Amino acid sequence: MTATYRPHLDDTLNDVRALLTRHRVLATMARRQASAPAERRDLLETLQQRQNLVELERKLASLHRADLAHILEVLPLDDRRLVWDHIAPGQRGLVLVEVSAPLRRLLLEWLEPDQMSAALAQLDADDLAYLADDLPPSALAAAAARLDSGQQSWLTDSAAYDDRTVGALMSRDAIALQESMSAEDALGQLRTLDALPGHTDRLFVVDSRQVLRGSVPVTRLLVAATTSGLASMMDRDVSSFSVDDDLAAVAKAFERYDLVSAPVVDRRGKLVGRLTANTIIDFVRAEAQRQALATAGLSDEEDLFAPILDSARNRWPWLFVNVVTAFIATRVIGVFAPAIESLVALATLMPVVASIGGNTGNQTIALVVRGLALDQLPTGSTAHLLRKEVTIGAMNGVMWGGVMGLCALALYGSGALAIVMAMAMVLNLLVAAVTGVVVPLALQRAGRDPAQGASVLLTFVTDSMGFLLFLGLATVFLV
Amino acid sequence: MTATYRPHLDDTLNDVRALLTRHRVLATMARRQASAPAERRDLLETLQQRQNLVELERKLASLHRADLAHILEVLPLDDRRLVWDHIAPGQRGLVLVEVSAPLRRLLLEWLEPDQMSAALAQLDADDLAYLADDLPPSALAAAAARLDSGQQSWLTDSAAYDDRTVGALMSRDAIALQESMSAEDALGQLRTLDALPGHTDRLFVVDSRQVLRGSVPVTRLLVAATTSGLASMMDRDVSSFSVDDDLAAVAKAFERYDLVSAPVVDRRGKLVGRLTANTIIDFVRAEAQRQALATAGLSDEEDLFAPILDSARNRWPWLFVNVVTAFIATRVIGVFAPAIESLVALATLMPVVASIGGNTGNQTIALVVRGLALDQLPTGSTAHLLRKEVTIGAMNGVMWGGVMGLCALALYGSGALAIVMAMAMVLNLLVAAVTGVVVPLALQRAGRDPAQGASVLLTFVTDSMGFLLFLGLATVFLV
Repeated sequence: MTATYRPHLDDTLNDVRALLTRHRVLATMARRQASAPAERRDLLETLQQRQNLVELERKLASLHRADLAHILEVLPLDDRRLVWDHIAPGQRGLVLVEVSAPLRRLLLEWLEPDQMSAALAQLDADDLAYLADDLPPSALAAAAARLDSGQQSWLTDSAAYDDRTVGALMSRDAIALQESMSAEDALGQLRTLDALPGHTDRLFVVDSRQVLRGSVPVTRLLVAATTSGLASMMDRDVSSFSVDDDLAAVAKAFERYDLVSAPVVDRRGKLVGRLTANTIIDFVRAEAQRQALATAGLSDEEDLFAPILDSARNRWPWLFVNVVTAFIATRVIGVFAPAIESLVALATLMPVVASIGGNTGNQTIALVVRGLALDQLPTGSTAHLLRKEVTIGAMNGVMWGGVMGLCALALYGSGALAIVMAMAMVLNLLVAAVTGVVVPLALQRAGRDPAQGASVLLTFVTDSMGFLLFLGLATVFLV
Repeated sequence: MTATYRPHLDDTLNDVRALLTRHRVLATMARRQASAPAERRDLLETLQQRQNLVELERKLASLHRADLAHILEVLPLDDRRLVWDHIAPGQRGLVLVEVSAPLRRLLLEWLEPDQMSAALAQLDADDLAYLADDLPPSALAAAAARLDSGQQSWLTDSAAYDDRTVGALMSRDAIALQESMSAEDALGQLRTLDALPGHTDRLFVVDSRQVLRGSVPVTRLLVAATTSGLASMMDRDVSSFSVDDDLAAVAKAFERYDLVSAPVVDRRGKLVGRLTANTIIDFVRAEAQRQALATAGLSDEEDLFAPILDSARNRWPWLFVNVVTAFIATRVIGVFAPAIESLVALATLMPVVASIGGNTGNQTIALVVRGLALDQLPTGSTAHLLRKEVTIGAMNGVMWGGVMGLCALALYGSGALAIVMAMAMVLNLLVAAVTGVVVPLALQRAGRDPAQGASVLLTFVTDSMGFLLFLGLATVFLV
């Protein structure tokens, strides 16, 4: 099987879609014929349909597993099923490793037990550990039984690590060389391997107890004199991570130091595995997406072409919170019903105060969430940040509150109304600034995702306070 | 100078902050003394202050350039200045390469011409090309004059590439080996280099006209017999990119295929440079952040500790749009003032319809923007997506519209009001679904960022339509 890298996927995708469209057309024709009398059925068309599917299979077999995964992600449900059914059984396991979590669960549902077992037979301990949470326990056990004992114990150990620690994402293909070796010994040991694993930019050097002592860049070994000892060639100052380290922090270290791979050690300093940049890129991308969706109150479990009921359910928790907070805002306005009855202009202007407060607060949240994601908000700088945001809120409040005050004056000809409008805007922008800084920081300190729900909480505060401030000031000064 | 990698930066940051705090305390004491009579001035304290700054300099000199950059990013303005002034002149150039764009511009403003020239003297053509847009032309020209002619022409060529193409981010350190070489010849050529550049996982093989023919993984060369020819060892099927390729698409190919480095060719297929995974990680991270801020109507030019006036200005464009749209929403309500006057309950309930429409629409936007970012929305699947979102909108509208209808019934005891409420909710959630799908797709098709301003446009539509639908239905059925 050739699996060509394709820097640009559009053409490939179009080819696959053309085959799928053709299949649908032929299938429709076949269905029509099925209802026609037997003598009118056209054997040629049935043949064409089969031929088309063979062509689809051949096309899919020529694709890299990452491209198959991408194609599955972008197809609607029925096309997904057709493509999945025509991917070679031995290829399916690797595709399962590449796809997103919600799609993986869908694809697994479509596999019969024997297909599942054929798919998992292709995977090593690292891949099985990665898929473990989504696999039926019996299928996982059967696949594990085929591994050698070293791989089996790796699989068991992996399951014990927290999902957000280095242990969960490390791979076991770290190459360890003994400190006492010469460059020639090292090359001899490497030649016993068929090929070095991907992302091997450095080889790890350990002492006789497997404790990590340093590392030698592959490129240095390449140009070294064969007699030089590893101990004299190696970097002793190597960035290593512990199995318990938090992945988010480790991802940042990978970025800061432009690492390709890094050794992972256990609590006693022994080399147990390694982390590679490709894993980190996937992690960074997934985190960024999870955060973008979390701000809108969604989990990253939803994929664009998921079944409708699953998608609808994914949106309920946030909608429920939203209905409750909207209801509370309603009650705030209800308190001031008499004021609105006597001056209906209040009803037209009050949403402006709430809406502009919500939007400026969301700007502050976006900045604070980014700052937290980049570790740019160490304790001690929050007071400074709060002062800054409050100052900006006050400036913008005076400026845009003034503008809206003039609008109110022009519309309703009341100077007092204009002043109430401007005052409410200034105060609500101050509320928005404080809330926008405090909410994500408080969520973070409570050990939660600072983006998750921050926007709901903020909008609740700025809406309720916007109505309360504007209608309250109006009641005091106007009614 | 040792520059230790630090997987975790907190301790280092705390050390630096302690020195800065100490400096501030000593400086305050020194100022107090300056106003005291001469005989009471304490020489010891002045000495302590100097000693403290020397210690700061020593601490900073021991740090990796990426860590210096991170520390500068997280410090407030005055501390930043102090740290920047105490970084060794020769180290400053490398730090400029690592920091974010807004911070870079700030740091450059703080450099005297001779300091600028000392900082830039450390940089090669790749680094200068990367900084070129932010440097004063005269400083750039002076730094370029020190380069050899090959590097100078690279610098000129780089400036010609669009910022969002491969040409802008490629580096010139690609190692090219002739197709006719043996493994031993290749090793001989490599040994002439001091060290191979970072992220060298494969060596590129070219023919006599410099046209890319294939690549050899470093690890394969390491374990190869010395007599084997490169032509027989190399992969012919290598993922290469063109200088004109779009970086976003290339970043996805890096992720799909887990690449560490890839060759870059010009329009005639000649090897001109290479791209490395560290550049791609930075690009992916920066894009994700730009998008998160764009959704809130901010540019990524704002950093958390920027001068207040700059920060305030960054928020004005969006606030202006927001004030205009809020004003239009005001006018929609104004049309129905008589209805509100006769039934004040309308004023209390109308923000609910608008707010829930805005929130559900923003959920749809978040999903569509993610789909576009992941290339999961090829043309042809939009009709499918629209149908799905409209169905979900209708389901959620019936469900939560029903809930809010019951709330309205409980509050105001009017069945007709409850029905108007529920109908307005259903219709506005349909509006939100359509707008949430159409707005980011339309922005994308117009060649703009699908996230930028999508939320403003959506909120404008869901607010105005929410008020119009609810008050309009109320006027027809209730008043």
